[in-house]
Amino acid sequence: MALYEPKDSSQSPRFTGPRTFMRLPYKEELDDNMDFVVTGIPFDTGASFRVGARFGPQAIRDFSILLRPFNVEQNTAIFDLVSGVDYGDLVVAPGYIKQSYERIVEQMLPIFNRGIIPIAMGGDHSITLAELRAAAQVYGPLALIQFDAHSDTWDSYFGEKYMHGTPFKRAVEEEIIDPSASIQIGIRGPLYDSTDLEVARELGFAVYSSEELFELGVGQMVDIIHERVKDRPVFVTFDIDFFDPVYAPGTGTPEVAGPSVRDGLHLIRGLKGLNIVGFDCVEVLPAFDPSQITAAAAANVMYEMITLVAINRRLKADTAVQKQKQKAI
Amino acid sequence: MALYEPKDSSQSPRFTGPRTFMRLPYKEELDDNMDFVVTGIPFDTGASFRVGARFGPQAIRDFSILLRPFNVEQNTAIFDLVSGVDYGDLVVAPGYIKQSYERIVEQMLPIFNRGIIPIAMGGDHSITLAELRAAAQVYGPLALIQFDAHSDTWDSYFGEKYMHGTPFKRAVEEEIIDPSASIQIGIRGPLYDSTDLEVARELGFAVYSSEELFELGVGQMVDIIHERVKDRPVFVTFDIDFFDPVYAPGTGTPEVAGPSVRDGLHLIRGLKGLNIVGFDCVEVLPAFDPSQITAAAAANVMYEMITLVAINRRLKADTAVQKQKQKAI
Amino acid sequence: MALYEPKDSSQSPRFTGPRTFMRLPYKEELDDNMDFVVTGIPFDTGASFRVGARFGPQAIRDFSILLRPFNVEQNTAIFDLVSGVDYGDLVVAPGYIKQSYERIVEQMLPIFNRGIIPIAMGGDHSITLAELRAAAQVYGPLALIQFDAHSDTWDSYFGEKYMHGTPFKRAVEEEIIDPSASIQIGIRGPLYDSTDLEVARELGFAVYSSEELFELGVGQMVDIIHERVKDRPVFVTFDIDFFDPVYAPGTGTPEVAGPSVRDGLHLIRGLKGLNIVGFDCVEVLPAFDPSQITAAAAANVMYEMITLVAINRRLKADTAVQKQKQKAI
Amino acid sequence: MALYEPKDSSQSPRFTGPRTFMRLPYKEELDDNMDFVVTGIPFDTGASFRVGARFGPQAIRDFSILLRPFNVEQNTAIFDLVSGVDYGDLVVAPGYIKQSYERIVEQMLPIFNRGIIPIAMGGDHSITLAELRAAAQVYGPLALIQFDAHSDTWDSYFGEKYMHGTPFKRAVEEEIIDPSASIQIGIRGPLYDSTDLEVARELGFAVYSSEELFELGVGQMVDIIHERVKDRPVFVTFDIDFFDPVYAPGTGTPEVAGPSVRDGLHLIRGLKGLNIVGFDCVEVLPAFDPSQITAAAAANVMYEMITLVAINRRLKADTAVQKQKQKAI
Amino acid sequence: MALYEPKDSSQSPRFTGPRTFMRLPYKEELDDNMDFVVTGIPFDTGASFRVGARFGPQAIRDFSILLRPFNVEQNTAIFDLVSGVDYGDLVVAPGYIKQSYERIVEQMLPIFNRGIIPIAMGGDHSITLAELRAAAQVYGPLALIQFDAHSDTWDSYFGEKYMHGTPFKRAVEEEIIDPSASIQIGIRGPLYDSTDLEVARELGFAVYSSEELFELGVGQMVDIIHERVKDRPVFVTFDIDFFDPVYAPGTGTPEVAGPSVRDGLHLIRGLKGLNIVGFDCVEVLPAFDPSQITAAAAANVMYEMITLVAINRRLKADTAVQKQKQKAI
Amino acid sequence: MALYEPKDSSQSPRFTGPRTFMRLPYKEELDDNMDFVVTGIPFDTGASFRVGARFGPQAIRDFSILLRPFNVEQNTAIFDLVSGVDYGDLVVAPGYIKQSYERIVEQMLPIFNRGIIPIAMGGDHSITLAELRAAAQVYGPLALIQFDAHSDTWDSYFGEKYMHGTPFKRAVEEEIIDPSASIQIGIRGPLYDSTDLEVARELGFAVYSSEELFELGVGQMVDIIHERVKDRPVFVTFDIDFFDPVYAPGTGTPEVAGPSVRDGLHLIRGLKGLNIVGFDCVEVLPAFDPSQITAAAAANVMYEMITLVAINRRLKADTAVQKQKQKAI
Repeated sequence: MALYEPKDSSQSPRFTGPRTFMRLPYKEELDDNMDFVVTGIPFDTGASFRVGARFGPQAIRDFSILLRPFNVEQNTAIFDLVSGVDYGDLVVAPGYIKQSYERIVEQMLPIFNRGIIPIAMGGDHSITLAELRAAAQVYGPLALIQFDAHSDTWDSYFGEKYMHGTPFKRAVEEEIIDPSASIQIGIRGPLYDSTDLEVARELGFAVYSSEELFELGVGQMVDIIHERVKDRPVFVTFDIDFFDPVYAPGTGTPEVAGPSVRDGLHLIRGLKGLNIVGFDCVEVLPAFDPSQITAAAAANVMYEMITLVAINRRLKADTAVQKQKQKAI
Repeated sequence: MALYEPKDSSQSPRFTGPRTFMRLPYKEELDDNMDFVVTGIPFDTGASFRVGARFGPQAIRDFSILLRPFNVEQNTAIFDLVSGVDYGDLVVAPGYIKQSYERIVEQMLPIFNRGIIPIAMGGDHSITLAELRAAAQVYGPLALIQFDAHSDTWDSYFGEKYMHGTPFKRAVEEEIIDPSASIQIGIRGPLYDSTDLEVARELGFAVYSSEELFELGVGQMVDIIHERVKDRPVFVTFDIDFFDPVYAPGTGTPEVAGPSVRDGLHLIRGLKGLNIVGFDCVEVLPAFDPSQITAAAAANVMYEMITLVAINRRLKADTAVQKQKQKAI
Repeated sequence: MALYEPKDSSQSPRFTGPRTFMRLPYKEELDDNMDFVVTGIPFDTGASFRVGARFGPQAIRDFSILLRPFNVEQNTAIFDLVSGVDYGDLVVAPGYIKQSYERIVEQMLPIFNRGIIPIAMGGDHSITLAELRAAAQVYGPLALIQFDAHSDTWDSYFGEKYMHGTPFKRAVEEEIIDPSASIQIGIRGPLYDSTDLEVARELGFAVYSSEELFELGVGQMVDIIHERVKDRPVFVTFDIDFFDPVYAPGTGTPEVAGPSVRDGLHLIRGLKGLNIVGFDCVEVLPAFDPSQITAAAAANVMYEMITLVAINRRLKADTAVQKQKQKAI
Repeated sequence: MALYEPKDSSQSPRFTGPRTFMRLPYKEELDDNMDFVVTGIPFDTGASFRVGARFGPQAIRDFSILLRPFNVEQNTAIFDLVSGVDYGDLVVAPGYIKQSYERIVEQMLPIFNRGIIPIAMGGDHSITLAELRAAAQVYGPLALIQFDAHSDTWDSYFGEKYMHGTPFKRAVEEEIIDPSASIQIGIRGPLYDSTDLEVARELGFAVYSSEELFELGVGQMVDIIHERVKDRPVFVTFDIDFFDPVYAPGTGTPEVAGPSVRDGLHLIRGLKGLNIVGFDCVEVLPAFDPSQITAAAAANVMYEMITLVAINRRLKADTAVQKQKQKAI
Repeated sequence: MALYEPKDSSQSPRFTGPRTFMRLPYKEELDDNMDFVVTGIPFDTGASFRVGARFGPQAIRDFSILLRPFNVEQNTAIFDLVSGVDYGDLVVAPGYIKQSYERIVEQMLPIFNRGIIPIAMGGDHSITLAELRAAAQVYGPLALIQFDAHSDTWDSYFGEKYMHGTPFKRAVEEEIIDPSASIQIGIRGPLYDSTDLEVARELGFAVYSSEELFELGVGQMVDIIHERVKDRPVFVTFDIDFFDPVYAPGTGTPEVAGPSVRDGLHLIRGLKGLNIVGFDCVEVLPAFDPSQITAAAAANVMYEMITLVAINRRLKADTAVQKQKQKAI
Repeated sequence: MALYEPKDSSQSPRFTGPRTFMRLPYKEELDDNMDFVVTGIPFDTGASFRVGARFGPQAIRDFSILLRPFNVEQNTAIFDLVSGVDYGDLVVAPGYIKQSYERIVEQMLPIFNRGIIPIAMGGDHSITLAELRAAAQVYGPLALIQFDAHSDTWDSYFGEKYMHGTPFKRAVEEEIIDPSASIQIGIRGPLYDSTDLEVARELGFAVYSSEELFELGVGQMVDIIHERVKDRPVFVTFDIDFFDPVYAPGTGTPEVAGPSVRDGLHLIRGLKGLNIVGFDCVEVLPAFDPSQITAAAAANVMYEMITLVAINRRLKADTAVQKQKQKAI
């Protein structure tokens, strides 16, 4: 039974009040009743093209008030299983990536330390490096599931090591993720060089292009992910540009010919049972999203992530019960 | 041969003149030469989230001037078979739903009484209850074919029985539709409660989610509709949020992962032969439709509805001819 | 010294966290440390043309995060003098005006009863009637200062007495405002009838058109207001359509050739010293405000209202001090 | 008493039905009860930069439904004095200017011949030449009052004589206007050459830049116009780019630092008493007008033009009465 | 090795400098180091509905700066194989189609004469007739591969033979294309008449509707194209309205239920090996493309065309090498 | 006589070709025939709120193609007096302000060294510090004329010394400007603290609020500037947020109640005769500028700056001539 759950929209219309994610309570302090926290990381200094993802969390919250607590596809009454809040946004230092990384790590650590699952809203993809740093302090090197049109494994950009095209190269170098248990899905679009294609693979990632995804289908892709990740602690990062631009026009570097939202949601749903310790959804850029389509996609991605937290909780409980039963026998 | 047909766009460019649906004549009085009337019902007081569907009819008219009279997919020269007009918009009482219902019923009755097929443009989905009340006075309890992301069978909202989430619960209670001959297609999205899912089924509707539609395919779905409805007088209501938000961003409560416009049009085309007595297309909200995509979808939905009127007229004529032939033999 | 004050944007960037007005704390319970509360009243069922002001409070909050606590023009460090919060939005019954009025009154009463100054964000102008009902229960018939392009003193609309064109006729009839101490400023635009012009005057209001305002100038207008209102308890209602549409395109019924934001702010600043018991700013409609200009205007109107609360507090304190000094002498 | 007047918006909400200008009846045939006709001329092939003014008439109609029949500033109940209709749009040949000119002349002639005052909505400014050709057939060379940021007196463009920068050079050459009785107001913006400035003056026009207008003020400008035009038959052409771009962003070639809508309306109001035989308002381009500000400006310009028709009718009647009285004496 | 290639975005950020296609050098003179030129033809006087495609080339350039030189799907480092530039835009005579045709032909001829492959950006589809005239002077009657929602084989429009609905009728009449080697793909949408459907077929084109394309699939469609065209010199024209409006809302006459960008790109990729002498991509209309989706689609279409130039170059080289090898043996 | 001047728009329509400022030649190398260069500095990492000014130069170029070479207000045929080019954009390191500063200085130095006047387009206001560093290396400490809503003299932001709110504090500290010869005009909006107001004055700037500007009027303000600056080498920096948001909605931190574009242009025109060594116009943010109003304002600001270069050239020439004449006598 949830202690923190969304406001009841039959008691106050969903369009009332300051927007929090899914109308969850806004709490600035962590406590023991939180299974997950939704938090924004409005940092976009890492962007190489369109910029403005600092307004992503607001845009996602604005749309998220439409979400209702029973996930039909997953047959799950989320807040019967888990309790969570909108934890507000982390403090960053706009314009300064290293300083922001330090601040993000510092603020994420207590969340991971308490075993709370963070579900973060970017911000550009550079933030994920900081999230992984914090997570790895608690869980050791993580498996990474990356839904993305780009590998983000460049070495540097204008002589600098940190920006939104490099986080996963850094993460491998820093040994905070284990590439042999990690996977990238949805990669596509023109590259600078034929070798670009190989960088991620050489780092150790399993890499699936969106064309490969189309051929394999969602079901088989899900199996591949499970095989790859197994029971490692895993972080799930979802770059909204994974989706075709018609589903996510509001993003920094759109690439045509990508998967649909339906495919994306089915993929996330397929992650149930994995030992997920954190999530994020990044690169939502509202200035190019006049009809809130991108925000809708992102809010639903977040929603499926929350549902996973709930389902995994139930699975664990079931397993515990079964174990106890077995013991009893 | 049509008495009322669209203006010829080779005589005056299609962008000339006040916009009527498909450039049909604008007539404020009914007469015997009308097989169908297109009419707006610009009422949006029933909306629970985004509001502004009162401007839906205008937006649909604005785009509809692109439509041409020969339906290629259906191989039908519409106005060789039927005659129809833009009947303007019904008068409603903005802000007052019950009073508006009375006015709508009063204005719809003469249409149904004359055996003219109304093809209405909403407005929010609350208007359909009033349309059904009028239709039922003439035809008795109707079958309902509802294309929609939401069942719209809530019991009440903030203590009130009438709004755009409740019309089909009311319609069953008022016995103006026969749920056992009725069907809902495209239902999806998170709900408040697991029981929400069952409400429509308990009321007697056949309910097909969009995921079920994807699995069955359009062809099989069409067969299911025909089986369900048979030869009952049937009303077809099309909530534009049936479509995935990329096809219909301009609507009140978008739900991701829905069907395409192509699927929707194939479904409507599949309704030929049914005894359809009325249509509507609702929840078009132009403020979120900067590229007129939603209006394009709605105008084409309306266009296929008009084509059905024409085809059904031909089918009846053919049947009559065949009967006469058989008699002659 | 303020107990409740905006978040310090040198500690967390102003674009972080759920948006509250001016980054004030979000509090759902009243307490004794509140001199004012900012509250949304997201009701728009009363609108006769463009609709969607239910999203006005969100839009105003979104822009308001740019506001800083020192009002230069008024030379006032607001939160050195007063304490206030974002009280969230009042619960309304969308689509039902009378029920919403009851709810608004019920929720406003405790605010007035505690002597807290409410600064409300609409919503359409129909909400002001409910605010006045609540205020009058505490203060008796109020003076009204109405900045507006329209008198809003129609008798009825489609047979109904309540909508956004009638609140001030009702307020006079209900004797909750005293028209002889009330004033309307900025009235303009075409009317239905020459008599429309006289209705407000016959009800007892002083009425100044925007052309008269241009001729008199802001300074003289301020004097006229003070003369009219004197020391009566007064409610200030600011319809954003007071401004020329270039300053406030995002509103329901724009009228060309109106005053500038600069004029409007000077007028509000001129109200200092009046015994103001409540404020609102209504008719902000974000769907027609792609560049957030209207939200900027409204946020600044709200800001000047808050400043007035602070200044009036200081004036009272000064007077008290002076009185005490005089006594001492 | 008017035979043709706007629909009563207390009987049907103003947002109902196909949009006609000001909700006037839509009539495709001229008759004797028309004092004026509003008509669109949706031709934009003459545009040299942004294009799309063919959708101008629709945009103006869309906003015009907000206009009400009593003009407060002019203290005139328009339809107590005159009767008029929305005559729809003239047929043009898109892409072909000469052919379109012929068609426009042919369709305008019957209007002028019947002594009906046309109030046309462009379309780009090239259409005015065709209007003047038709008018001059009936009235002989006309005085021209041109509100515009540009003189539109170029000789040619890419070797061609007809486009929206040349109509008034052509009109002088064709002797359908009398430049010595004509005046251009609002001219501004950078030019190709210092001689450009002199072309219009050399053709015989009185030319007032917007800076000169600011210095003279509206009142003196009005006197100058009356002195210049006297009692000649005069055509009034209003290019919406006369206004500063903040008032009219939706136009083809905006020039900064122009007059306000308020100034513009005061200028038109000042034209009462002149022998005006036709009007147009051109260069409204909705694709750059997301908030309908430009449409609002244009609709109000049109409204003041209609009011002038009404006032001039009254003045004539008054004069006739006075003459008769004098005779009687 | 390329002499002209895109600017290196690791040396200057891709958002720096005047926008040229893909950051290619901007050259106004042809020279011998150019294998292809990208050129705009910003002419839109031929448009029958929405207009503004003169801004298409700019919009495509704006987005194209995101493109990178290695085409993953085609495994091709473009500029290892070919050299090309942004040749700027051709000079047209706005508002005058015949004069513009002459100018286009005159400017295209030197390109074809030098054996440079032009890749043109429209402008409306009327421009293709002029391109074909120039190409045919050099290559004789061409095969045409037309991706389009409309056949564009009307005879005339408002009495005129040239506009964007007629170019391919003209091209057949002028014998500059060989319809028996030509093919139209993607045709759909309502028509004026059942005979419209047959016009293109009667002219000799192979015509495939978008529904036929869906049934055949991309692979089979590619085979059909190759069979039809064989080794004739062929011109590829891509009307952006080939795509479903969700992928290309920014176009003049959108038709619902069309193919995806992914399908379109696969089709173009399938053209490798054909003897393509020129390309264009037309009907991009940025005013209806607020999120740059249409520009993204068009830029990628252009990109695949350039890749084809590179691949065909390699294929020729390979063949030459093989031939030489065979000779050597 | 100009060697480099804009393309003649009577030879190629102004909407043809890659956009350069005012259609000037695009040159990547400096040469002796350049009196001025227009250059973009697309850096926006310094922004504290809305971000995206990296696209400012493109937006300004896009609109600038409307500008024509004869400045009517200044009676100056610009390119009879001076020669200039679009120098493209400087290379910056996105996300890294110090590195970008170094790059900007390095690239600006050759411009100043050659005595060419740079007219830069931002980018956010942080770039001006780098421009001043370069200029001061050549000219020594400069006078600064700053048109701006904000003083931009904060000390630091989130512990960092460089961002768009601090450049002029730094410039004083680095002794690259002489505050005693410098002036800020247009300052307004709420502040964090009463002391904020004094910071700029304490640094030595003359500071004029927008309210003071309204009171003094443009003419007197111009005199004050001249008195302050005298004949010092002076840099003119124009933050587009100087203008009221209705004129410049597309900017990072809009402040209501500012001056008009007309006022701004008159102020710049008033600077003639000053010894101006460089200009910039910053903070144009196209994502909030759907109607290109802000770009229009900025392009015209740039245009007046170029005109000043031309006029000052003429003044110097005249002085030289006069001196020679005097000598001759």
